[in-house]
Amino acid sequence: MLTQPAGKYLPFPPVKLDARQWPSNTLTRAPRWLSTDLRDGNQALAEPMDSRRKLLFWDLLLQCGFKEIEVAFPSASQTDFNFVRQLIEEQRIPDDVSIQVLTQARSDLIERTFAALQGAKNATLHLYNATAPVFRRLVFRQSKEEIIQLAVSAAKQIRQLCEEQPDTHWTFEYSPETFCFTELDFALEICEAVAEIWQPCAARPMIINLPATVEVSTPNVYADQIEYFCRHFTRRAEVCISVHPHNDRGTGIACAELAMLAGADRVEGCLFGNGERTGNVDLVTLALNLYTQGVPPGLDFSQMKQVVDVVEQCNQLPVHPRHPYAGELVFTAFSGSHQDAIKKGFAARQQQPETRWEVPYLPLDPADIGCSYEAVIRVNSQSGKSGAAWMIEQNHGLTLPRALQQDFSRRVQQQTDTHGKEMTQASIWQLFREAYGLRDPMSVALGEYSSQSQANGQLNFRAELLMGGKRKALCGRGNGLLSGAVDALRQAFDLPLSIQDYHEHTLGQRSDSRSVAYIRCTFDDNQAAWGVGIDSDVSRASLQALLNALANYLQTRRLL
Amino acid sequence: MLTQPAGKYLPFPPVKLDARQWPSNTLTRAPRWLSTDLRDGNQALAEPMDSRRKLLFWDLLLQCGFKEIEVAFPSASQTDFNFVRQLIEEQRIPDDVSIQVLTQARSDLIERTFAALQGAKNATLHLYNATAPVFRRLVFRQSKEEIIQLAVSAAKQIRQLCEEQPDTHWTFEYSPETFCFTELDFALEICEAVAEIWQPCAARPMIINLPATVEVSTPNVYADQIEYFCRHFTRRAEVCISVHPHNDRGTGIACAELAMLAGADRVEGCLFGNGERTGNVDLVTLALNLYTQGVPPGLDFSQMKQVVDVVEQCNQLPVHPRHPYAGELVFTAFSGSHQDAIKKGFAARQQQPETRWEVPYLPLDPADIGCSYEAVIRVNSQSGKSGAAWMIEQNHGLTLPRALQQDFSRRVQQQTDTHGKEMTQASIWQLFREAYGLRDPMSVALGEYSSQSQANGQLNFRAELLMGGKRKALCGRGNGLLSGAVDALRQAFDLPLSIQDYHEHTLGQRSDSRSVAYIRCTFDDNQAAWGVGIDSDVSRASLQALLNALANYLQTRRLL
Repeated sequence: MLTQPAGKYLPFPPVKLDARQWPSNTLTRAPRWLSTDLRDGNQALAEPMDSRRKLLFWDLLLQCGFKEIEVAFPSASQTDFNFVRQLIEEQRIPDDVSIQVLTQARSDLIERTFAALQGAKNATLHLYNATAPVFRRLVFRQSKEEIIQLAVSAAKQIRQLCEEQPDTHWTFEYSPETFCFTELDFALEICEAVAEIWQPCAARPMIINLPATVEVSTPNVYADQIEYFCRHFTRRAEVCISVHPHNDRGTGIACAELAMLAGADRVEGCLFGNGERTGNVDLVTLALNLYTQGVPPGLDFSQMKQVVDVVEQCNQLPVHPRHPYAGELVFTAFSGSHQDAIKKGFAARQQQPETRWEVPYLPLDPADIGCSYEAVIRVNSQSGKSGAAWMIEQNHGLTLPRALQQDFSRRVQQQTDTHGKEMTQASIWQLFREAYGLRDPMSVALGEYSSQSQANGQLNFRAELLMGGKRKALCGRGNGLLSGAVDALRQAFDLPLSIQDYHEHTLGQRSDSRSVAYIRCTFDDNQAAWGVGIDSDVSRASLQALLNALANYLQTRRLL
Repeated sequence: MLTQPAGKYLPFPPVKLDARQWPSNTLTRAPRWLSTDLRDGNQALAEPMDSRRKLLFWDLLLQCGFKEIEVAFPSASQTDFNFVRQLIEEQRIPDDVSIQVLTQARSDLIERTFAALQGAKNATLHLYNATAPVFRRLVFRQSKEEIIQLAVSAAKQIRQLCEEQPDTHWTFEYSPETFCFTELDFALEICEAVAEIWQPCAARPMIINLPATVEVSTPNVYADQIEYFCRHFTRRAEVCISVHPHNDRGTGIACAELAMLAGADRVEGCLFGNGERTGNVDLVTLALNLYTQGVPPGLDFSQMKQVVDVVEQCNQLPVHPRHPYAGELVFTAFSGSHQDAIKKGFAARQQQPETRWEVPYLPLDPADIGCSYEAVIRVNSQSGKSGAAWMIEQNHGLTLPRALQQDFSRRVQQQTDTHGKEMTQASIWQLFREAYGLRDPMSVALGEYSSQSQANGQLNFRAELLMGGKRKALCGRGNGLLSGAVDALRQAFDLPLSIQDYHEHTLGQRSDSRSVAYIRCTFDDNQAAWGVGIDSDVSRASLQALLNALANYLQTRRLL
């Protein structure tokens, strides 16, 4: 059992928040998005991106519609510095995009940071320093006053350097690190002090970023912290409140969403949640969560596969098969009851394509993010009758009668129970063809045939069968083609064959389309057999279906 | 841009809940845990587990401490049915463990389900039927009354069959599917109707499971639904309220945690969040989230690597490198400032090992789940001076002086900026040895030496050096060993060498341990060079460090 010495871990203290508002709020608009893939994401990679991979990621972020992109920590590495210079000097930054860079509160680092930004049209200078008690005590050994003084003098230096470069449109950003375990009133105090220097206004926009660099509590507590901060910060109307959640407790998405309910205007994160340790909050999921609630996210993930490909290539980390919206399994149903419900949802939608999206088990239409429906239903031993039938219908256009679905699902179940493996599209189609006589050549193939109706309403039927290289002629009569054929077969094979079930439909919608016929016959011993026939002649399709049912019966009785 | 036809997606309607309580609650105890890895998890695998993998998983779940395990959907596949029989017949179920099986509300399926359970000591019969409007309308085309009738008659049949098998200790479980998008009052109504049949009491324990089989809203809404249900259900005191969250919006963990705040007693989920599409809620993260808040989770993940190995083998799906608590990168810091803080946190903890766990950026002590500290700090171009120094200290016991850390980090940064790759432990040690003269053989090696103190407080120093196969004798004097050696070197090499910095410490704690000396010298042109020496003789270690500094200088000036 997990050993837990008493007092090693303590519960995170709740926030004293009267008349809490956020749980009654709803999300009605997208936040401002900041991608920090090229900074926070990059610095968490075993092998950080080289210039080529950084440019690839940069182009992807522009394509996705990001307008604020944190591109580097220029004072921390030459590679980062060079990348900022490259973006600016090669004029790769669109006019409506602002690049952001991070700096610590140290004079030499701030100067180096400004050197990197020379000539940028829009830039956000992101200053942080450590405010949390554990950092003050263990890492920096500084008092609250010293910590505030550090932030204030860095803020002054930054404002001065910005004013010396008026050709750049500057945005100021400050992060108390780590907000989520800093005393709330101290976080307020230091942010007030920085704002007092920067004097935020329309000409000097300021972002206050409140990171949960390490998650330390349930997401409702983070929301309480954000609401508390928004309520008590004196210049609330003049600043943009940003959040920067990580995912140590697996609740990064929830932290961001509840923080938005609590007043956050802006979210910093990475695509698919890359970032140090468990990663930053995943902006793809956040955006599509809004999308599926009818809120335009302002980001474009309509080509999800391409986004996944580029990010995997740049980060050299996989997107998990179950990653919301993007994983290769997330639209797939294996379970029979799920498949059945999904099939009915799609059928209803075909009737009324303009209505609200309401396909069971699919919160998002895969087509909206450039995915096909192919992956939606896959067949294994957990699949009921619907799955295999759906695949036959989707891939080959055959709408199996209900009783045939049941018959076929028993055969699929036998196979999957025996082999324990998923059945692919191809193996299901192969099983279907084997089971219902669609072999090449047919075991009992129809050669020439003729039918001639009589004045008395009867019909004469003649045909030639090909069985194992031999020809067999037969004739019979009935009140129609099939009954004539049944009569002929009864005589030729000496069997009390009769048709129990017959369905036929065209494959496709053109007049020259082929038809498919499904026929279920019973025999003297009450055994039944299905046969399927496909032909461009509707008569030949149904006759061949009948012959295939017969062939199946003869084979099970070892008569063929 | 993502196209979004008006009305295709709509916001999920909020819950009308007055005087909401859950946001003010805190988590103080673990819920009852139900693993559904062998049922819900298994049915989502492309290749469901065979009997061997199922048994492997079963044993793992017992080892982790699960007392409630959903093992199968026995009426849905023969493999599932057989597995239940195997567990019972081979007496693999401990007396304090209850197996659970799922069944639909159909008479023949219920009978088959009971057949599977024959002879079980403890069993939970888990009944579900579809209650959500989209299922009622599209899938089953039944009225609310018909849906209730279906549940009630299945409940009656189940109660009767249970009473016919009194040797099994039965627990009854009912799930309205899918609770989270069923009208709340209808969910209440159907659960009341089922409870009316089952008459829950101590002898007939009943679980009401409220699944979010597909996530459709932010997690606070799910919590509202749970609180509303708990508040209005008439037999609340007689039933166990269970939740079963999935992860379509990436907020499964948050849903479970907020639902617990709202009154849920029990959580159903899978290890590492396996399950259909985006998966079920991850029970490992939930348990360790409680653990890191000082709440004993009642589950054992003290051997995480083994748990990951078994689950990956059984599910044939990977655990993502950034998966909370379990991924291979989640305790790793690459960033320099993080590494620096972590180092200081560990140092403080060495002083006071019994205090609260408070190492920056590590919400959990890796040792608690059987992980070493090796992965905590890794070095690439994003790492500052601390990372490389930490690795040298952890692996070789050398506590580098601060100025040497800075010197070395510049060399590391040059390498990582040049190659763009992570530096391994071995390559960092190699670089360190090259940089500070720990070569084999040394460029300027110390042979015999003698020191003799004089009555006047002076010391005579003599030594023989070995340089490239040649011997060089030297002598000098000073007020101590090092000043004597410096004097001798000045004369022998005609260099105004002087020592700026000197540190020495033992490697290890035994009296016969070796010592390491760090010496920084400056030369006539104000150039400086570090040398490091290691020897079991403290004098030889410092002399060799001095010679290595000299050798470094001579090499940079191409004099050696």
